[in-house]
Amino acid sequence: MAVESACDIRLDCFPVRIEVPTRWADNDMYGHLNNSVYYQIFDTVINGWLAEHVEGSPADSPVQGVVAESSCRFLAEVTFPDPVLVGMRVERLGTSSVTYVLGLFRGGAEPVLAALGRWVHVYVDKRAKHSVSIPARIREALTPLSPDAETPNQEWT
Amino acid sequence: MAVESACDIRLDCFPVRIEVPTRWADNDMYGHLNNSVYYQIFDTVINGWLAEHVEGSPADSPVQGVVAESSCRFLAEVTFPDPVLVGMRVERLGTSSVTYVLGLFRGGAEPVLAALGRWVHVYVDKRAKHSVSIPARIREALTPLSPDAETPNQEWT
Amino acid sequence: MAVESACDIRLDCFPVRIEVPTRWADNDMYGHLNNSVYYQIFDTVINGWLAEHVEGSPADSPVQGVVAESSCRFLAEVTFPDPVLVGMRVERLGTSSVTYVLGLFRGGAEPVLAALGRWVHVYVDKRAKHSVSIPARIREALTPLSPDAETPNQEWT
Amino acid sequence: MAVESACDIRLDCFPVRIEVPTRWADNDMYGHLNNSVYYQIFDTVINGWLAEHVEGSPADSPVQGVVAESSCRFLAEVTFPDPVLVGMRVERLGTSSVTYVLGLFRGGAEPVLAALGRWVHVYVDKRAKHSVSIPARIREALTPLSPDAETPNQEWT
Repeated sequence: MAVESACDIRLDCFPVRIEVPTRWADNDMYGHLNNSVYYQIFDTVINGWLAEHVEGSPADSPVQGVVAESSCRFLAEVTFPDPVLVGMRVERLGTSSVTYVLGLFRGGAEPVLAALGRWVHVYVDKRAKHSVSIPARIREALTPLSPDAETPNQEWT
Repeated sequence: MAVESACDIRLDCFPVRIEVPTRWADNDMYGHLNNSVYYQIFDTVINGWLAEHVEGSPADSPVQGVVAESSCRFLAEVTFPDPVLVGMRVERLGTSSVTYVLGLFRGGAEPVLAALGRWVHVYVDKRAKHSVSIPARIREALTPLSPDAETPNQEWT
Repeated sequence: MAVESACDIRLDCFPVRIEVPTRWADNDMYGHLNNSVYYQIFDTVINGWLAEHVEGSPADSPVQGVVAESSCRFLAEVTFPDPVLVGMRVERLGTSSVTYVLGLFRGGAEPVLAALGRWVHVYVDKRAKHSVSIPARIREALTPLSPDAETPNQEWT
Repeated sequence: MAVESACDIRLDCFPVRIEVPTRWADNDMYGHLNNSVYYQIFDTVINGWLAEHVEGSPADSPVQGVVAESSCRFLAEVTFPDPVLVGMRVERLGTSSVTYVLGLFRGGAEPVLAALGRWVHVYVDKRAKHSVSIPARIREALTPLSPDAETPNQEWT
């Protein structure tokens, strides 16, 4: 995944911006955040934001957002004990799936883009495991984060 | 917790012995297994052994073994990509709790004790969250790993 | 390890108090923080505090504080997305080792003790791997967190 | 990333095939492997294979393979305590970078593709942090895993 637009490299272009502290064990033997930790952070930012803005626990819901695809391009090192700043936007709001773009920035006076991720959640019925429509309360919450709420979005397949 | 007996430092004294590979991300910035990884490995050895020897998934059971207490003394470094050898025995089989002792050894011709852990599982009702008797099928499986199956054990409190 | 004093169960008795957010992946299949995550959090609180109060990166130092022993008693569940509050104090400041006590609290109007941990760091020479005196700048930083800075402490052995 | 060829979905098409056990803490609150664990497993398979086939520890080397980009498509659930089977091949062997394709399969009589990942390592000088040529001993080891060792490969940019 390429860095696609000027906006991807500026934190203030992302409608959601969250500071996430790092942990001692995040640093691997190269002394920087292990690549899998970026995905843990993306997961936390997305699900933490949903927990705050949408009622109901995912554990109790018959419908779950499961990861269908994820990717990340790593551009600069990040190291504990420095916190990171994560920007999140919705790139596509489909019928049953949501694509997020996540910019992970190193803090400071001018945040520097350290990684750029993309993340696809597909909503599935917990028991039957087939895809279902995004629950209405989640769609409503995510619409303001989407590129153009007026235009119907294409479905991710 | 002290290394209490000659048997704790010899792998062949443990009735259960399992090889566990390490992972790249297990090494922290000091270039050796992060301390929390030892606990992940103990958890895996205990629950993996139970999964193999006791029918039924813990996810579906109304009764869960939850960790009430754990401890570990770290004696020597372990480093990815080396696997470790874990010995497990039951120190005490109470009414509602089980205490395990786990020896984590560095492999080779003569395994060297790298860490010694102790782990207490208390069985609880998943919904009510109060302690219950150890399920009969689990007690039966664990009895042969206990120090003296004939003598009533004291309860951990 | 028992809950030893009234002070252990009150967050405001700990001289250091830090809020730590949880992560989605911290919850295990029982829907609560996996026990190993508590140790990751303790590690982060201790090393994060040291990074803030003592100059110099541990990666560059010839002397490292490595974990000799740790333990935790788990008293109540904690669940993502809830943050936790961690209190830290020094129980013993020896010649080459430090013993920390860590109280992990569930937040809210009145924080509830969810886990109580103990953690021993021994300072070692990075190359020779033998224990050395606690570096002076670390001893100075930790002294105010100790129970009685005037009384010589006993060494952990 | 799409499943691109018939060979991606058959374990026996991958020149390297490694069984990797899962851990209790790998399962998240949905009761299946957390997505970040797949990346930990890919990292382990790649670096474990290199550790076995190329002399010298990465910790001591002046040149490090760091992750420039990774992605994964998740196709089926995997659950502890089941082990997974991982197939690995080199898709492109460039001047300073290597692209791996990793198929993660659920075991059994006929392994089922559960996830398909792609992983780009760029070799960098540990101090200067700029990219360098892939060390000769690593290139030699990886060449037999490449699609066509006779044809010069294009560089990843």
